[in-house]
Amino acid sequence: MSHPIVLVLNGPNLNMLGIRNPQAYGGARLADIERVMRAKAETMGLALEFRQSSQEGVLIDWIHEAHERVAGVIINPAAYTQTSLAIADALGILTCPVIELHFANVHRDLTKANRHLSLVRPVATGVIAGFGPGGYLMALDAVAMALAPVEFRAKS
Amino acid sequence: MSHPIVLVLNGPNLNMLGIRNPQAYGGARLADIERVMRAKAETMGLALEFRQSSQEGVLIDWIHEAHERVAGVIINPAAYTQTSLAIADALGILTCPVIELHFANVHRDLTKANRHLSLVRPVATGVIAGFGPGGYLMALDAVAMALAPVEFRAKS
Amino acid sequence: MSHPIVLVLNGPNLNMLGIRNPQAYGGARLADIERVMRAKAETMGLALEFRQSSQEGVLIDWIHEAHERVAGVIINPAAYTQTSLAIADALGILTCPVIELHFANVHRDLTKANRHLSLVRPVATGVIAGFGPGGYLMALDAVAMALAPVEFRAKS
Amino acid sequence: MSHPIVLVLNGPNLNMLGIRNPQAYGGARLADIERVMRAKAETMGLALEFRQSSQEGVLIDWIHEAHERVAGVIINPAAYTQTSLAIADALGILTCPVIELHFANVHRDLTKANRHLSLVRPVATGVIAGFGPGGYLMALDAVAMALAPVEFRAKS
Amino acid sequence: MSHPIVLVLNGPNLNMLGIRNPQAYGGARLADIERVMRAKAETMGLALEFRQSSQEGVLIDWIHEAHERVAGVIINPAAYTQTSLAIADALGILTCPVIELHFANVHRDLTKANRHLSLVRPVATGVIAGFGPGGYLMALDAVAMALAPVEFRAKS
Amino acid sequence: MSHPIVLVLNGPNLNMLGIRNPQAYGGARLADIERVMRAKAETMGLALEFRQSSQEGVLIDWIHEAHERVAGVIINPAAYTQTSLAIADALGILTCPVIELHFANVHRDLTKANRHLSLVRPVATGVIAGFGPGGYLMALDAVAMALAPVEFRAKS
Amino acid sequence: MSHPIVLVLNGPNLNMLGIRNPQAYGGARLADIERVMRAKAETMGLALEFRQSSQEGVLIDWIHEAHERVAGVIINPAAYTQTSLAIADALGILTCPVIELHFANVHRDLTKANRHLSLVRPVATGVIAGFGPGGYLMALDAVAMALAPVEFRAKS
Amino acid sequence: MSHPIVLVLNGPNLNMLGIRNPQAYGGARLADIERVMRAKAETMGLALEFRQSSQEGVLIDWIHEAHERVAGVIINPAAYTQTSLAIADALGILTCPVIELHFANVHRDLTKANRHLSLVRPVATGVIAGFGPGGYLMALDAVAMALAPVEFRAKS
Amino acid sequence: MSHPIVLVLNGPNLNMLGIRNPQAYGGARLADIERVMRAKAETMGLALEFRQSSQEGVLIDWIHEAHERVAGVIINPAAYTQTSLAIADALGILTCPVIELHFANVHRDLTKANRHLSLVRPVATGVIAGFGPGGYLMALDAVAMALAPVEFRAKS
Amino acid sequence: MSHPIVLVLNGPNLNMLGIRNPQAYGGARLADIERVMRAKAETMGLALEFRQSSQEGVLIDWIHEAHERVAGVIINPAAYTQTSLAIADALGILTCPVIELHFANVHRDLTKANRHLSLVRPVATGVIAGFGPGGYLMALDAVAMALAPVEFRAKS
Amino acid sequence: MSHPIVLVLNGPNLNMLGIRNPQAYGGARLADIERVMRAKAETMGLALEFRQSSQEGVLIDWIHEAHERVAGVIINPAAYTQTSLAIADALGILTCPVIELHFANVHRDLTKANRHLSLVRPVATGVIAGFGPGGYLMALDAVAMALAPVEFRAKS
Amino acid sequence: MSHPIVLVLNGPNLNMLGIRNPQAYGGARLADIERVMRAKAETMGLALEFRQSSQEGVLIDWIHEAHERVAGVIINPAAYTQTSLAIADALGILTCPVIELHFANVHRDLTKANRHLSLVRPVATGVIAGFGPGGYLMALDAVAMALAPVEFRAKS
Repeated sequence: MSHPIVLVLNGPNLNMLGIRNPQAYGGARLADIERVMRAKAETMGLALEFRQSSQEGVLIDWIHEAHERVAGVIINPAAYTQTSLAIADALGILTCPVIELHFANVHRDLTKANRHLSLVRPVATGVIAGFGPGGYLMALDAVAMALAPVEFRAKS
Repeated sequence: MSHPIVLVLNGPNLNMLGIRNPQAYGGARLADIERVMRAKAETMGLALEFRQSSQEGVLIDWIHEAHERVAGVIINPAAYTQTSLAIADALGILTCPVIELHFANVHRDLTKANRHLSLVRPVATGVIAGFGPGGYLMALDAVAMALAPVEFRAKS
Repeated sequence: MSHPIVLVLNGPNLNMLGIRNPQAYGGARLADIERVMRAKAETMGLALEFRQSSQEGVLIDWIHEAHERVAGVIINPAAYTQTSLAIADALGILTCPVIELHFANVHRDLTKANRHLSLVRPVATGVIAGFGPGGYLMALDAVAMALAPVEFRAKS
Repeated sequence: MSHPIVLVLNGPNLNMLGIRNPQAYGGARLADIERVMRAKAETMGLALEFRQSSQEGVLIDWIHEAHERVAGVIINPAAYTQTSLAIADALGILTCPVIELHFANVHRDLTKANRHLSLVRPVATGVIAGFGPGGYLMALDAVAMALAPVEFRAKS
Repeated sequence: MSHPIVLVLNGPNLNMLGIRNPQAYGGARLADIERVMRAKAETMGLALEFRQSSQEGVLIDWIHEAHERVAGVIINPAAYTQTSLAIADALGILTCPVIELHFANVHRDLTKANRHLSLVRPVATGVIAGFGPGGYLMALDAVAMALAPVEFRAKS
Repeated sequence: MSHPIVLVLNGPNLNMLGIRNPQAYGGARLADIERVMRAKAETMGLALEFRQSSQEGVLIDWIHEAHERVAGVIINPAAYTQTSLAIADALGILTCPVIELHFANVHRDLTKANRHLSLVRPVATGVIAGFGPGGYLMALDAVAMALAPVEFRAKS
Repeated sequence: MSHPIVLVLNGPNLNMLGIRNPQAYGGARLADIERVMRAKAETMGLALEFRQSSQEGVLIDWIHEAHERVAGVIINPAAYTQTSLAIADALGILTCPVIELHFANVHRDLTKANRHLSLVRPVATGVIAGFGPGGYLMALDAVAMALAPVEFRAKS
Repeated sequence: MSHPIVLVLNGPNLNMLGIRNPQAYGGARLADIERVMRAKAETMGLALEFRQSSQEGVLIDWIHEAHERVAGVIINPAAYTQTSLAIADALGILTCPVIELHFANVHRDLTKANRHLSLVRPVATGVIAGFGPGGYLMALDAVAMALAPVEFRAKS
Repeated sequence: MSHPIVLVLNGPNLNMLGIRNPQAYGGARLADIERVMRAKAETMGLALEFRQSSQEGVLIDWIHEAHERVAGVIINPAAYTQTSLAIADALGILTCPVIELHFANVHRDLTKANRHLSLVRPVATGVIAGFGPGGYLMALDAVAMALAPVEFRAKS
Repeated sequence: MSHPIVLVLNGPNLNMLGIRNPQAYGGARLADIERVMRAKAETMGLALEFRQSSQEGVLIDWIHEAHERVAGVIINPAAYTQTSLAIADALGILTCPVIELHFANVHRDLTKANRHLSLVRPVATGVIAGFGPGGYLMALDAVAMALAPVEFRAKS
Repeated sequence: MSHPIVLVLNGPNLNMLGIRNPQAYGGARLADIERVMRAKAETMGLALEFRQSSQEGVLIDWIHEAHERVAGVIINPAAYTQTSLAIADALGILTCPVIELHFANVHRDLTKANRHLSLVRPVATGVIAGFGPGGYLMALDAVAMALAPVEFRAKS
Repeated sequence: MSHPIVLVLNGPNLNMLGIRNPQAYGGARLADIERVMRAKAETMGLALEFRQSSQEGVLIDWIHEAHERVAGVIINPAAYTQTSLAIADALGILTCPVIELHFANVHRDLTKANRHLSLVRPVATGVIAGFGPGGYLMALDAVAMALAPVEFRAKS
């Protein structure tokens, strides 16, 4: 039996991660994140698809292909967070959990008010922001919990 | 040797969780969350302090007491998210990681614009929202990763 | 058989009523309002709980205690009208009628725009404003009508 | 000696009440409200004039005719609440109490922000909203209390 | 040969002028203004049509009838200044001068921000405000100057 | 058997169409539009009621009379588009299709921002704007398609 | 002689139509719309080019290719309505009629304020919204009327 | 006995009047206006002081010198209308009538929203705008009427 | 004879002063400020009450107790400056001078726009901001000058 | 050895102080303030330069001349507070303390919102407002404390 | 030794330059600009890469490829000026000078407020706007001056 | 034959350039810029007038004197960029090219939003910002290109 697929989508400029700001996040590059994430996914019984594009339309196509095929989508929309209603619409079609992920908690920088808005958030299940590359691992846990919810209520 | 302490603060009305909307989050009450969280913390070698108050000033006092004593703070500020600059100021004094946590992703409900703002976010390390009680467990992982960061960058 | 309970909550600074502006509202103090209101409640077969606090958290606790115990809540939130989402959240838990009450119709004073907003109103059944202490008596009638609605539609 | 007159003005579309949403307010029609209100007014020694028009100018003329003739005006301005400064100006001429009345507490519906504003409120004595047809009866009491104020201050 | 016609239109509530605030403008009523204005118009060789209505539609009809018939329109739109785009549209059809007139300079009262806007102004030739009843006489002069412009440029 | 009735309502100043701007829309007057529209309606088996008023209240009354009597309403609200919540409320009572129609696409003129808003749109089935008198004919088709929807989905 | 070409452009996510919300619009898919539209176009003597892309740049290229080649453009810009000034600029180059088309009248949903704006509208000839797939047929009529305007003005 | 003095102040750039736009206002230059105005003032028994400066501080000094010396001030503040609170403060000291004057009715040009505001208006007696150089003559009449008010109220 | 009392109120988080940012203000703690202030007050013949609370309600109670008992109130409301209308209302009851005090001039930091507003300022006699602990001493002088005003006007 | 110089700058219209509102501030004129201030400065070992201008540019020149010459600047910018970025820029060049001073606490008057903003504040060391002429004396103390800071921290 | 490379990027629709508005800029097409620019670059010892795309993602990829390879980037982002945070992020990675270039000074057209904003500007070294094709030549000079700054300060 | 004159105007505080921030722009002072600029102008056959004033009115007078006398105006309005409509009006009179120049690209500093607006831009031919003193040389080229436009369009 095949493993549930988790699709990880990385938006514009994320291919430059670690090249641009080597001192940020321990110099982690996108390939590093994919490697660590893949290792963790394997231990969780999850199949990982990990992609990056700076093309709004390519990201949309990938989301369409995920429809009713994947168990969860983790998306770091980067600058498309603020500008792409089209990606938000595409995500809105999905019925699986959608995790919106950001490296930084942009609200710490009060001058970046134009980064505080997210067009994607209204269609996301949840959001994780401010934990750097570690957030990708937390997002995997979030998908896993969505597939197999933790039982909180004590049995009476 | 004593375990690092994680302080979990729950804001106003969270004592009514599960009483108010039994059908939400599997009927989980705050005590349920504390129990499951405590179990996980134990396996992680973390000591848990779990508190709730509807008093803004009491929450502030608890944050002051945590200063240079705890390893991380997880706070679900509930309605004080939008109205308490004083809690934000108190959190701003801390030097340990501060995780802002919310049950719901309020941006899914477009009519709740007055809940979209967070006064706490500018002083939080990161934010987790939309994963219900499961978010508390993710927050524990976030604190753990802050204490012992995952190595992402491949050794050359 | 016990009488239905009506909880009357008075917010910050209302304990200074009549002391502050003796010429306003015929010099009525909060104790005066309680006395007149209690007399009327008695004739209506209603039990009255009448309280005041300038503590946001104390008001919240009183609302929690009212949950599924009282037949109606009349609240004059005073300055918390504009600043307490937490009180609004607490009131939102209740299933009985909630009457929002104000002495003055603040819209008559066009310079007081920052008093025109109410965070409480979205969770209130109805609002009565501008009738001074008399509004407390009208609120009692409103609770009574909620418990025993007037039949308007003519029988055919 | 003649009874004090209370003029009740109903604004645009209120003639369709009960026809439009039979399930709302127990199917009450405007004639039902007039009948119940007239019965109560009689017991209070008040004469009732009850009118409806969807014409802004007609409502203004009726307000002019009321000047120094009636003891109180109860007005449900319906959609003119938001759009008629001219009705507000007319009401502003009156020296008797003016009660602004609404069936619904529009603030419960956060999407109806364009109904939250009232141009009439700055010239109203007080406002009653959210109590359905019962609000008309409360308004009668408000007029009565304005004519014969309740004595709150205890005699020393 | 007939005299050029000047149409003077008075908007809602202006029929109550002098009744409402007898101390304002020396107690002048609308009929007083008409009388003094008519006397001045006669000396200027102008025929006066002087009307008042609180009906937006009636004012519109009067403006339509004026099309290509009158030499100038003087309009005191009162509260329709702020709310009637329809009157503005009607005035926009005219090719003769349109004088917008107001008794008061509403900008002196900083709390009346909602009276500062004029929907009529974009289609008016000019505006006169703040001169009380005297403004009507100034408006007559403005119409006269439009019909027979003063020669300012000195002949070389 | 009688034909379904389509009510066409024209708002303020539309009686001046073609008089005001003879060069616009080929000089078409309202009577021209009625004639061409009536011819087309006849071929479609629809009965046409075609009316104009500059009175907000008269338009509201006509809408009330249409309730449960007509098969569709086509309304060109002209300036009441921006200012009449009362007409919007009246249209909101109807259960038949309501087509909002405008001669011009006002968004082409960026200076006319105050014409971009429509209070009527939230209660309209659909909107047609920018096609001049031809829009009236398109609106007839829209009503017809609402009565007898085109089958798009291919039978499998 | 060749038929005039009408270019129909469908924006992002419209390829998912009917897959996403099968209950909406009778389950119509984009291919269904193309088929019905093509049938109608044929009867009208119009050649149809029907395309869809989720790529902003591809849509722009198609519009460039249409320049001085097609007789009309019908565009359903979907989410690019709100975010693509570049598509608006491309359409602004065209000299043929441009019809902006939307399935839904987004103004019916007051929470979707961020969908009310259209960057495309200022360069569109006209707009059709709220008629579902039927709007595509109405748009064809609009193009036809632009090519052969209906004569409204009665010959004198 | 000396004549009452009317001070006419012209703000920045008005010295270029007629040079800049010779076709506007019949090519009238500031000296032309002074000449015609002086002639009229003489017939009215008024002494005229007519000045221009592009210096904000110089205009303020002139206003100070007018304090309790002149019978009226007519000011065309030009661009200082929008930017000089200091001139407004200076005018606010005066106890004589202050007439704010503008050549154009800037509200006719909807793109000039930044010219619609006036900082001077809250301290002006009245405003005259849109009548070109003729407005200066109307302003003289306004001052005269302020000195010797027309009697409107008919003697009973 | 007893000395006039000056009440000094310190708001939320001020108990952490000097602990939080030892390098700021020379490491001064709240007790240091109290000590220096008390020394100065003594030389001025003023009795000092110096208090701190992070509880909004406690601060309100202290203000109530001060009513008609103290000669002046100096308040550093810290974060409650922006969020507590209730404290503002309490201060508004007082008849003695109220000095609003802040360590920093927050306007120097343009990113802290949400700290620029003060709800307390409308009820304060005056404000002192930006002088660090020294401001407390200036505030004492301000109270003293209010009790015994300096004579500025030279005797003639 | 020469005394440190304190430059006191008074902005537009302040030369009219006491003339304009003799009842305000005990009729104090600017010369009175200079005299009292000079007396106090002498006792403090400070040299005073006291100037007033209504010319924005003159004030700027005076600030330039103060650069690296004076020990402190006290400025009451009057109306230039709101409108002169140029004065703010000039003050921003200085390295000595800059005290922004105002007679009134403008926030007490809620209608004067356009006076609440200060362009000067972001470059001021601190602000003193609401203490009338007495504020000038407090400002002298503020300069003195900046030159010789009070020691608050207790020696350990 | 190779010449420093200057990358010139042209955004959406610029391929239509001169085709769309032949009368604008002397009918210059993009190839004309490239030719003239290339000639000038050659004389300056600069290598030119000149590209155009209407694809946001393609422009981003080109910017990535330029990282640490080119000596300067000149970008005319056209409509992406207002809508592409992703291009801004890509430019923000670069360490060489980035010149933002526009043909027109859009601020001359006050109706085009939505073109006044630039998302690219915060990451640009400088901006040149309003000089038509000539601006491309000025931009070359700007790059050259960045590579070899002009010495302004006179040697002492 | 005389050379075309280029007038260079420098606004408030620019006389302090290099004194204020010696490290900025290589310590260049205004005299340095004038010297380098004059050298370049000479080689271009242009006469230079180079002036500075912190007086708004003086700058306006210089612009008036330039009318129909100079071939181009280069203006660095400094703080008057944001506050002087009067300078904008003066520039608007000119028929020669007007270059708006700024040392810095203020949009790089997101906290300086109040510097992003330019009142001068709507009347400028073009704008150059962010190139420091070098921008003055680019502006000379811009004037030269305006006088002798580069031929871009290839001859066919």
